[in-house]
Amino acid sequence: MKELKNLIRTIPDFPKKGILFRDITPILQDGNAFKKVITIFKKETPKDIKKVVAIESRGFIFGASLAYLLGIGFVPIRKSGKLPWKKVRIDYDLEYGTDTIEIHEDAIEKGEKVVLIDDLLATGGTALASVKLIEKCGGIVEKILFLVELTDLNGREKLKNYDVFSLIKF
Amino acid sequence: MKELKNLIRTIPDFPKKGILFRDITPILQDGNAFKKVITIFKKETPKDIKKVVAIESRGFIFGASLAYLLGIGFVPIRKSGKLPWKKVRIDYDLEYGTDTIEIHEDAIEKGEKVVLIDDLLATGGTALASVKLIEKCGGIVEKILFLVELTDLNGREKLKNYDVFSLIKF
Repeated sequence: MKELKNLIRTIPDFPKKGILFRDITPILQDGNAFKKVITIFKKETPKDIKKVVAIESRGFIFGASLAYLLGIGFVPIRKSGKLPWKKVRIDYDLEYGTDTIEIHEDAIEKGEKVVLIDDLLATGGTALASVKLIEKCGGIVEKILFLVELTDLNGREKLKNYDVFSLIKF
Repeated sequence: MKELKNLIRTIPDFPKKGILFRDITPILQDGNAFKKVITIFKKETPKDIKKVVAIESRGFIFGASLAYLLGIGFVPIRKSGKLPWKKVRIDYDLEYGTDTIEIHEDAIEKGEKVVLIDDLLATGGTALASVKLIEKCGGIVEKILFLVELTDLNGREKLKNYDVFSLIKF
């Protein structure tokens, strides 16, 4: 996907010094590029998937569009304190400290097959926590989709028990 | 839209005492309901719109799906510090204190017609700030779409110079 990769804007020292940030907004604001991305994600989605689960907040952009295209439900995973109803939650380690993500307990039915989607695979910490959260609800993660993978950070290793697809690699 | 309205879950005292929170996640996780919402938003979108602009983060869910369906670009408006590139920003008043939202300065071209979309019209403060932000970039807000409108809070009055559509009213 060379043309799509060329649309990614690389920004040095964001959000902090030493980090090369991969800015995906040029893909989003190009209607053809955005459509191509969602179409490819559809092709990568296994049959008999019942829900698309996405991680706040850039994951919502891809996850909701994919759910719309497939005609299936969309489930948000959010940071702590954002979801209003009965929740399942999980804490996970960051480089410094911990973070918490949550999902509504009625969002996924037991045995339901889902895809998980986010914009970026970096260390894989948030994605692995999301997988565990879905499994706590009784869901089955059939595939994990990312727009961008930062291969040096080895997130794929952390997700090695799952079927992972990324569209653009750096 | 009675069936859609019936899917909204009302949660008392969230996020704080005295507030009735309208939870839209039951619509999202129902593939048919979600599809119906996006289809209606498409019908409400004027011709010759070039971009869909959405407000973080629940707005992304509807905005991205609508942009996909229309085959046009998607532009995120985000809280301060989230967007990595050159930005236009605006401060606006909240009930207590102020908040800041930002947009990439290259996201909208001068004279470009856009729709603005969010999940909820409450007091209209965030929506009005978003309109001003788009206008600072030279964009023209042809229509503003909401899933839910809380009519008691009079947000529509604040947006009276614009064409506002809401799908579900409380």
